[in-house]
Amino acid sequence: MAMTGVLRPGHAQLRVLDLEVSRKFYRDVVGLVETGTDAQGRVYFKGCDERDHNSILLRQADSAGVDFVGYKVLDRASLDDLERGVREFGIKTERIAAGEMLETGERVRFQLPTGHLFELYAEKKHVGNGLGQVNPRPWGPSFEHGMAPTRFDHCLLYGPNIAANKKLFTEVLGFYLVERVIGPKEAGEPEIAIFLSCSHKTHDIAFVEHPEPGKLHHVSLRMPSWERVLRAGDIMGMNNVPIDIGPTRHGVTRGETIYAWDPSGNRFETFCGGYEPYPDGEPLTWTFDEFGHGLDYPTGKLHESFLGIVT
Amino acid sequence: MAMTGVLRPGHAQLRVLDLEVSRKFYRDVVGLVETGTDAQGRVYFKGCDERDHNSILLRQADSAGVDFVGYKVLDRASLDDLERGVREFGIKTERIAAGEMLETGERVRFQLPTGHLFELYAEKKHVGNGLGQVNPRPWGPSFEHGMAPTRFDHCLLYGPNIAANKKLFTEVLGFYLVERVIGPKEAGEPEIAIFLSCSHKTHDIAFVEHPEPGKLHHVSLRMPSWERVLRAGDIMGMNNVPIDIGPTRHGVTRGETIYAWDPSGNRFETFCGGYEPYPDGEPLTWTFDEFGHGLDYPTGKLHESFLGIVT
Amino acid sequence: MAMTGVLRPGHAQLRVLDLEVSRKFYRDVVGLVETGTDAQGRVYFKGCDERDHNSILLRQADSAGVDFVGYKVLDRASLDDLERGVREFGIKTERIAAGEMLETGERVRFQLPTGHLFELYAEKKHVGNGLGQVNPRPWGPSFEHGMAPTRFDHCLLYGPNIAANKKLFTEVLGFYLVERVIGPKEAGEPEIAIFLSCSHKTHDIAFVEHPEPGKLHHVSLRMPSWERVLRAGDIMGMNNVPIDIGPTRHGVTRGETIYAWDPSGNRFETFCGGYEPYPDGEPLTWTFDEFGHGLDYPTGKLHESFLGIVT
Amino acid sequence: MAMTGVLRPGHAQLRVLDLEVSRKFYRDVVGLVETGTDAQGRVYFKGCDERDHNSILLRQADSAGVDFVGYKVLDRASLDDLERGVREFGIKTERIAAGEMLETGERVRFQLPTGHLFELYAEKKHVGNGLGQVNPRPWGPSFEHGMAPTRFDHCLLYGPNIAANKKLFTEVLGFYLVERVIGPKEAGEPEIAIFLSCSHKTHDIAFVEHPEPGKLHHVSLRMPSWERVLRAGDIMGMNNVPIDIGPTRHGVTRGETIYAWDPSGNRFETFCGGYEPYPDGEPLTWTFDEFGHGLDYPTGKLHESFLGIVT
Repeated sequence: MAMTGVLRPGHAQLRVLDLEVSRKFYRDVVGLVETGTDAQGRVYFKGCDERDHNSILLRQADSAGVDFVGYKVLDRASLDDLERGVREFGIKTERIAAGEMLETGERVRFQLPTGHLFELYAEKKHVGNGLGQVNPRPWGPSFEHGMAPTRFDHCLLYGPNIAANKKLFTEVLGFYLVERVIGPKEAGEPEIAIFLSCSHKTHDIAFVEHPEPGKLHHVSLRMPSWERVLRAGDIMGMNNVPIDIGPTRHGVTRGETIYAWDPSGNRFETFCGGYEPYPDGEPLTWTFDEFGHGLDYPTGKLHESFLGIVT
Repeated sequence: MAMTGVLRPGHAQLRVLDLEVSRKFYRDVVGLVETGTDAQGRVYFKGCDERDHNSILLRQADSAGVDFVGYKVLDRASLDDLERGVREFGIKTERIAAGEMLETGERVRFQLPTGHLFELYAEKKHVGNGLGQVNPRPWGPSFEHGMAPTRFDHCLLYGPNIAANKKLFTEVLGFYLVERVIGPKEAGEPEIAIFLSCSHKTHDIAFVEHPEPGKLHHVSLRMPSWERVLRAGDIMGMNNVPIDIGPTRHGVTRGETIYAWDPSGNRFETFCGGYEPYPDGEPLTWTFDEFGHGLDYPTGKLHESFLGIVT
Repeated sequence: MAMTGVLRPGHAQLRVLDLEVSRKFYRDVVGLVETGTDAQGRVYFKGCDERDHNSILLRQADSAGVDFVGYKVLDRASLDDLERGVREFGIKTERIAAGEMLETGERVRFQLPTGHLFELYAEKKHVGNGLGQVNPRPWGPSFEHGMAPTRFDHCLLYGPNIAANKKLFTEVLGFYLVERVIGPKEAGEPEIAIFLSCSHKTHDIAFVEHPEPGKLHHVSLRMPSWERVLRAGDIMGMNNVPIDIGPTRHGVTRGETIYAWDPSGNRFETFCGGYEPYPDGEPLTWTFDEFGHGLDYPTGKLHESFLGIVT
Repeated sequence: MAMTGVLRPGHAQLRVLDLEVSRKFYRDVVGLVETGTDAQGRVYFKGCDERDHNSILLRQADSAGVDFVGYKVLDRASLDDLERGVREFGIKTERIAAGEMLETGERVRFQLPTGHLFELYAEKKHVGNGLGQVNPRPWGPSFEHGMAPTRFDHCLLYGPNIAANKKLFTEVLGFYLVERVIGPKEAGEPEIAIFLSCSHKTHDIAFVEHPEPGKLHHVSLRMPSWERVLRAGDIMGMNNVPIDIGPTRHGVTRGETIYAWDPSGNRFETFCGGYEPYPDGEPLTWTFDEFGHGLDYPTGKLHESFLGIVT
């Protein structure tokens, strides 16, 4: 196969402070499709154009943040191979039984050097995007409910030792480095942010060096166009959703974006655009003094809140 | 005629601190079409889709700001009628001879209650938009040079006593009130910003109550689409043009916008969208507590720099 | 006033073959807002962003077509003046009592040289666009129901002697010629199509020379963007609405468009874009051999169905 | 690696009837970047956002069509593996020496069951997209020269026995079936068109069943947005480029498109949009009676020229 191993971001379990408030927010304001609630009380959602049963899960908790993220792999053989690789890399793994998450097969879970719980899995029930498999319409009502993101696109995680994460993702998990931000010259230009892809998206996951382990910067939700990013911004305005940055264009990845916070303070992104990198390309580098344009290309502003606030 | 009297914003003369720097900025970064230089050294520009000889003039000066703005009227008879009306309103007028501005006929000039010099004129040479009058292409190279605004759309001026301006514009000059912002309840909800149209645009001119007379908040340049507003923002980023706000959507007028500063500190706007008001409609009102959404609909932020900085 | 006399297209009464089928079509597929039914059984609609009570009326009939179109004038004095002008021009007028159409004042009706019934009126109830007059959101649910056109933008009518219509509209009704198509050289280049504006839209009404009087080519409905024109096209595809042309760009007016037929065979357009003409400009001319590009700029095709089919 | 084996469409060599006319067409009308001419007189181009030296080659010939298409593989080991697989599948391969094409490594060439010459290669010189590897701008002048497609996106080839191609591509080359069109029920619903991906694009290659072997339907060039597809259409109109279909939306792949012909009669597509399939998904099926919507979603028209004309 040309696409093998890890295919894409599959799920993220977010901690929320008030489950009912958050359920309504993600369902009716963000416009994800609610697909179920499990025995633990977790609520499941998917993007309107995703075909698997779920991608965003909410769990009631005392503090915001992300419990874990999971990536879909091609098949069970890939799952076994990747688990073996992770163990050989020196990281312990555990298997979580099929069914622990609704409609989801067995998951291999391990802790990243940055402290995040990361999962791989090979099976999640195909429920379709509501348009059918035969002569589908190009879109339907769920594509206009709320902001109506099409997919869980990627996540950005903060933690210490992203160099070790980079080694794990590029040497074991089959990702490649697409872009990176380096620190100041006087500090030796260390990589302080890395954007990694397992596909030809500009990023399937990204990490920022940060002293505290296991922190979430944002989950990113895919929008179909810049006009739809503005529509998402309008809906944020209508609902007084606090916005961090945007609408604007990123220099990094060239994407078009708004960052906002959910009612628990978890940051999410409505994102479109970008270009098409491939694993045989060379990564792009953003220097520290130009990272303002990397973050917010038109203004070149280094937004303090963006850099510092995580959950 | 259905469109009579004052037709549209015609010209604005901006003061700039370094003429050559500003000439290059407006020509190659903003992407206006340079159409001439007069004996006084003033440089003339037009938007790519304007058919008259000029709309934005630059004059070398020691301080930034706007010398005057001029509005095109239908014909000489309208000019005479409007001048008579202005005098009857109690404002002195003067006539500036044809030719004082390149390719521009006689101008009637007077001072608004807010302290701004305002002009009316009936004649400016038709030079076309470069596409010809017969079988024109929909656009040409000047439509992609720099940000390539199509037109001088409107201006926002700051000064004292906008109530008197409103009376003059609505009772004498044929404008109507499209939107307004009112002050806090405890202050009696005075009109602190008014958006006036002489057409079915959301504004041809706007005023904000401000203690200092004759100040410029911004001249607005028309863009064809939200995608082209982002393209303008990209060009701002490429050229380190300082941005005040945007890209974003206004609540007031529903337009899509970026505000930025020219090298002399004059604010300009790249603007598209809005709706189509008519003089038989009722004005919209923005209350003081919701003006954040009026300014920046997605974020609802009251940007201090936007409110306070004028030239 | 700067905008005086005739302001805009106000209403068009369409004949439909099956009222219930058409009601559902215009309400749920086109996405107009249904605002009432009168004692005669006529069904009333408005565009989502129109503030007056109605703009498109449906009447059950044995043949498709347009009964009449009506244009809103500024006030009763304008109505009286314009009626006087029409009579002096040599055309008889009649007054139709207020209330004959729901929420609509007295109408002055007369027959154009091309055989169409044309109306002027000064009063129609302001019902708003659903967003309120204070701190309005930029859009609401009706802006995404069906194709959701914002306004009745213009109409194109076919009939004999458009030269006389031109004279009436430009000399009496205050319109001006924005663009025109001329016939072949060997025929002396007569005007075979004229696009007239009473505003700074590229057309508020247009006429094509045609032997049969009183025919409708299309009513045009305004869309907010080229992306929304495609969305309208998607909805046409979902509902098997027969399309004549598009999506494409017009050379004439530069607008972006799809033409389609309603269930009775009346053609309608979903239209956006265009430029901003003014009455002091010079009209653009399309020669006969280049009219293909005038109609469908990318392809340059002269679509037979577009030229020949009217109701 | 998660992306392994065949990565993407790399190059297509087109036969053109007049090399100089075609060079100007592809350079200045289509807006590809010319990157060289070799000793055989072939002219090389790349899309503005491609980083490899070339993607579209022109060869002077007596008849239009495609000589061969080449796909980039991850590395030399992949090339060897894939060659072995092709031979085991029963197809002879040959090696073409590095340098036979400018800046391109050794190629493995073989003939598909449909009669097309198909190549795999692991090396092509990285020349960049003109924006640099450090702090890149989001776009530059080449992104607005002509239609300015970003990439060679995919091609559609006509020939007999696409079932054998499908077997080869899915069982050996690592592609997966994304969509398919099936014939009429009375014919047993054979697959008459297949859309195959080696990535998460909706197609990297497609085949249509056709009696004559080795025919080209079109090469597809990627555009960044629907607005840019219209811009491409405008440029087609300005240059009298004959258009086959569009602008419109495909039902198949959901993409937005225009099809046109180059001066030699080779069809090309300017394409954007689509969704993101993955190899673990289920293919979509278009039935014969609904293929009109598959081709042209808004109109549902089965364009004869599209179905029948190939080179």
